[in-house]
Amino acid sequence: MQDALIINTRDLEFQLFEVLDAETLTQRARHADHSRETFNAALDTAHAVAVEKFAPHNRLSDEHEPQFDGQRVTMPHEVKDALDALRATGFLAASKDYEWGGMQLPAVISFACLSLFKSANIATSSYAMLTSANANVIERFGSDAQKRKYLGALFEGRAFGTMALTEPQAGSSLSDLTTTATPNPDGTYSIRGNKIFISGGDHELSENIVHLVLARIPGGPPGVKGISLFTVPKFRVNEDGSLGARNDVALAGLIHKMGWRGTTSTMLSFGEHGECVGELVGEPHHGLAYMFHMMNEARIGVGLGAVMLGYRGYLASLEYARERPQGRHPTSKNPLDPQVPLIEHADVRRMLLAQKAYVEGAYALSLYAARLVDEQNTGESDDARAEAALLLDLLTPIVKSWPSQWCLEANSLAIQIHGGYGYTREYPVEQFYRDNRLNMIHEGTHGIQAIDLLGRKVTMKQGAALKLLARELQRSIDAAREHATLQAHADALGAAWRDLNGTLEALLPALATDTDRALANANAFLEAFGHIVMAWTWLRQALVANAALPGASGAADQDFYRGKLHACQWFFRCELPRVASMLAPLRTLDDTTLSMAPQWF
Amino acid sequence: MQDALIINTRDLEFQLFEVLDAETLTQRARHADHSRETFNAALDTAHAVAVEKFAPHNRLSDEHEPQFDGQRVTMPHEVKDALDALRATGFLAASKDYEWGGMQLPAVISFACLSLFKSANIATSSYAMLTSANANVIERFGSDAQKRKYLGALFEGRAFGTMALTEPQAGSSLSDLTTTATPNPDGTYSIRGNKIFISGGDHELSENIVHLVLARIPGGPPGVKGISLFTVPKFRVNEDGSLGARNDVALAGLIHKMGWRGTTSTMLSFGEHGECVGELVGEPHHGLAYMFHMMNEARIGVGLGAVMLGYRGYLASLEYARERPQGRHPTSKNPLDPQVPLIEHADVRRMLLAQKAYVEGAYALSLYAARLVDEQNTGESDDARAEAALLLDLLTPIVKSWPSQWCLEANSLAIQIHGGYGYTREYPVEQFYRDNRLNMIHEGTHGIQAIDLLGRKVTMKQGAALKLLARELQRSIDAAREHATLQAHADALGAAWRDLNGTLEALLPALATDTDRALANANAFLEAFGHIVMAWTWLRQALVANAALPGASGAADQDFYRGKLHACQWFFRCELPRVASMLAPLRTLDDTTLSMAPQWF
Repeated sequence: MQDALIINTRDLEFQLFEVLDAETLTQRARHADHSRETFNAALDTAHAVAVEKFAPHNRLSDEHEPQFDGQRVTMPHEVKDALDALRATGFLAASKDYEWGGMQLPAVISFACLSLFKSANIATSSYAMLTSANANVIERFGSDAQKRKYLGALFEGRAFGTMALTEPQAGSSLSDLTTTATPNPDGTYSIRGNKIFISGGDHELSENIVHLVLARIPGGPPGVKGISLFTVPKFRVNEDGSLGARNDVALAGLIHKMGWRGTTSTMLSFGEHGECVGELVGEPHHGLAYMFHMMNEARIGVGLGAVMLGYRGYLASLEYARERPQGRHPTSKNPLDPQVPLIEHADVRRMLLAQKAYVEGAYALSLYAARLVDEQNTGESDDARAEAALLLDLLTPIVKSWPSQWCLEANSLAIQIHGGYGYTREYPVEQFYRDNRLNMIHEGTHGIQAIDLLGRKVTMKQGAALKLLARELQRSIDAAREHATLQAHADALGAAWRDLNGTLEALLPALATDTDRALANANAFLEAFGHIVMAWTWLRQALVANAALPGASGAADQDFYRGKLHACQWFFRCELPRVASMLAPLRTLDDTTLSMAPQWF
Repeated sequence: MQDALIINTRDLEFQLFEVLDAETLTQRARHADHSRETFNAALDTAHAVAVEKFAPHNRLSDEHEPQFDGQRVTMPHEVKDALDALRATGFLAASKDYEWGGMQLPAVISFACLSLFKSANIATSSYAMLTSANANVIERFGSDAQKRKYLGALFEGRAFGTMALTEPQAGSSLSDLTTTATPNPDGTYSIRGNKIFISGGDHELSENIVHLVLARIPGGPPGVKGISLFTVPKFRVNEDGSLGARNDVALAGLIHKMGWRGTTSTMLSFGEHGECVGELVGEPHHGLAYMFHMMNEARIGVGLGAVMLGYRGYLASLEYARERPQGRHPTSKNPLDPQVPLIEHADVRRMLLAQKAYVEGAYALSLYAARLVDEQNTGESDDARAEAALLLDLLTPIVKSWPSQWCLEANSLAIQIHGGYGYTREYPVEQFYRDNRLNMIHEGTHGIQAIDLLGRKVTMKQGAALKLLARELQRSIDAAREHATLQAHADALGAAWRDLNGTLEALLPALATDTDRALANANAFLEAFGHIVMAWTWLRQALVANAALPGASGAADQDFYRGKLHACQWFFRCELPRVASMLAPLRTLDDTTLSMAPQWF
């Protein structure tokens, strides 16, 4: 079944065990029970559940959106069946402590498992992803009582989680949230306000739903410094974990989207008609910091979702291009010759190679980020852990934005390869394209990632994160210069990095003195930085492929490594050169956008 | 009503009467009855019909696709109401002879009218566009008897037209068409075969449907040299114009698309169950040449459709950005200050400016192409007419492909400005994005436009078309060098053009000797060429704005001209520099895509 082609398993193996050395993680105490075999068993199980339970209803739940009859939200039962299978196999707690029923898998392995669910069905898998992100916040910042109440239920999937941040009047501007949390004598809070775009905000997929809600305790400071975080369950939870009365969290309406239709997107009203009880998480007025913990993880997850939609489209169009006969070579005009498969046409091959470069590169970057999470959690020294955290912090805007932009472009190319068929709903690729368009918007828009990167991340701790990335890049460059076939790439990456740093030096003084102008072209910086990070990611893959190729025994492995080297070459020849023109407006502090008066439009 | 904002009428006026001097066309014999006033009257009527009849059901017909019950194709009645209004106002024959009930409007004016229908509702307007393109072929290549039978009905909209080229097994490869046309003793032909993706292939919107069908007369040469063109009506037409028996053109099924849902897209079978009579148009085996006449016009029309979808999204996002308060400036962090409108944010302004540059630039290019049609038809000398035809032939791949690519990008930016709302179906922009994705596919894919441009157009007649374009560019460059504010743009355009020509010189020998390799990066050539043409288009607009600004009396006019100059500056600073990296793989005859073996993917 074409629909079920969710991953190139050879690539997955390459990323985890050849590029990222995931097997070495078994030497760490936390993962001591694990081995390459247990990792593979988890991946195989995830693959089977993804193919058998998640992929088959991907189109169905797109065509049959959740419906609200005023009482309940209903959707095709296949969504719940798939999530039940995921629950049963324990993936909601894959990386969690044995104590919580988890498997103590490294982040990079559980993330790879998650990638398979996302590829198979982004909408259905997002219920699980939100639940897992939600549980992480409670695990890290919640009280013991909150953990007892919620964590087991979330890890087992009896309860699903949401993150309820956005309000209709505030959007990206969390500073302007108005939902209130008024203290009650018993230590709880009464929540009142409206939230919008809350994914998984209501459904019948789990016994309970635990909302993590940002709200203001009256009397607190204005702006983001007065925002607190609350657990607000759909059904109140008794001390023994049993469910109590319905909390007044009301579904004010469902939102109808272009894609990603299988995930309920909701408007919720809290405490409008009755009592809505919430419990404070951590300290008052620290809510945003806690939520950012969740958001950073969610951002890596959004990036991964974008990757997998791109990946899926790539595989579908590759299969189509191999099977569909269409036309002849430009120099072979005899109409009596048989038609050649699409893949024989140079321009189709370009579109496949571009997709391969985008999606396999972005997949490598996503898994690299997950590997940094492991290093941050279980790295062998304080320094190693701190460095990993710092590097991840710097790269997060790229890990989120680059796949959102370029794997969407990959989806467009997948449609193009299918021709008119690609534009129809009889083929899967148009849905991937619609689904993927969301990723540049949610969990911080592209513009917000850009300001985060240029306005905060590159300068934080006196540029320590940037220096760290420079060191890592240089390591790869030095290694690549040892190999004749990679030398030109190494030089090109070095030159692009110097170009970026030169630009940044010109920008830095302005960032302090003329911030609006220095940040005006932040988007260009995000794109240039992203392309450099991606070139580096390809160079690291090429180093591994180049080393492995001479010893590769089978034709399949040789082909695989050659493909990696060729995709790397494509990225360096056709994509990396774009960095120069991306940087141009930054170097000159170009103010064309800033100086465009609103009335001139 | 936000939905009804279909054009910036000041821009339309600017393009027609300031940039393209449309009023001078009234000096030509064919348009002698016309004046600026009659042009404006036609535009006003089109605008009113578009806003009142076309725009209101744009979402409705997206949500309620045509349905086929086995007998009839039904759709919301608003589609027919709108087309009835268009019929009643005579726009189907706007540029046609008085003899046929036409208005003898210049192409540029009728094209501008058409743009308003397209902006208001691309799907509904496409029935009219196809009909008009169909009638043009019959008018030019049909026999007198065919004209008598069909033209009046098509121009009045009693019959609608289609172009039935594509077959399921052939797609873009017309060489592989297998539909047959077997001669009958009475001079007619029996048509037999299957067609797919036939827009407007069946419906109840008109009394009759006239299909223009490509088919093979048995015994003819293989490939494209054996293709003939036939009129195949749904209902046979008697000599007196009355309708006769049903022809065996059967609807084999409707195609369900990502967007453009209001237009029926059909699979048709001809002569499968009964007699399907067709009449030969022109000479046997010349069908492709005739059809290309229609296709070239259709390609300009597709480009215009892409422009208008982009334009509509731009206007919607501009209005939203002006009205929606959201966040504060980076340097103004007091949360008690009121939020500022979105348009105050530099990155939002960038996205508006990019859209303006894409859509107003592409609109200028589309109308320039229409103006060339006028020059080709009624130019004052044989030379002028021949030159216009040549230039139009060269530019057609750009006029089709550039808006399809960049006005789609504009639609993506319009969504982005709306944030989460933009991704919902409660706002109009997501539909524009879905609708626009078709334009890179139909009427010759992007890849086909690229091969047409590099493999045929730039070298045709010993490069005569290219020389002509060079002369026109140089004129604009020379004029711009006279003005201090435009000098840098003039120099940049000159440099980019030299860069392109240098690349072409390196390519030309290979085009003859190593065609596959020389054409392997044709897509990059199409993009670089397109960006240069667009920079030139902006420079021509800037020349007019720059000349008009000092004498502009009102603030509104001054703002308008400043906006044009600023958008031009944006294009030259942020877009034109991309040409260098686009050309890079062409200059080196890079074979990365060609040498990627299929088994390496």
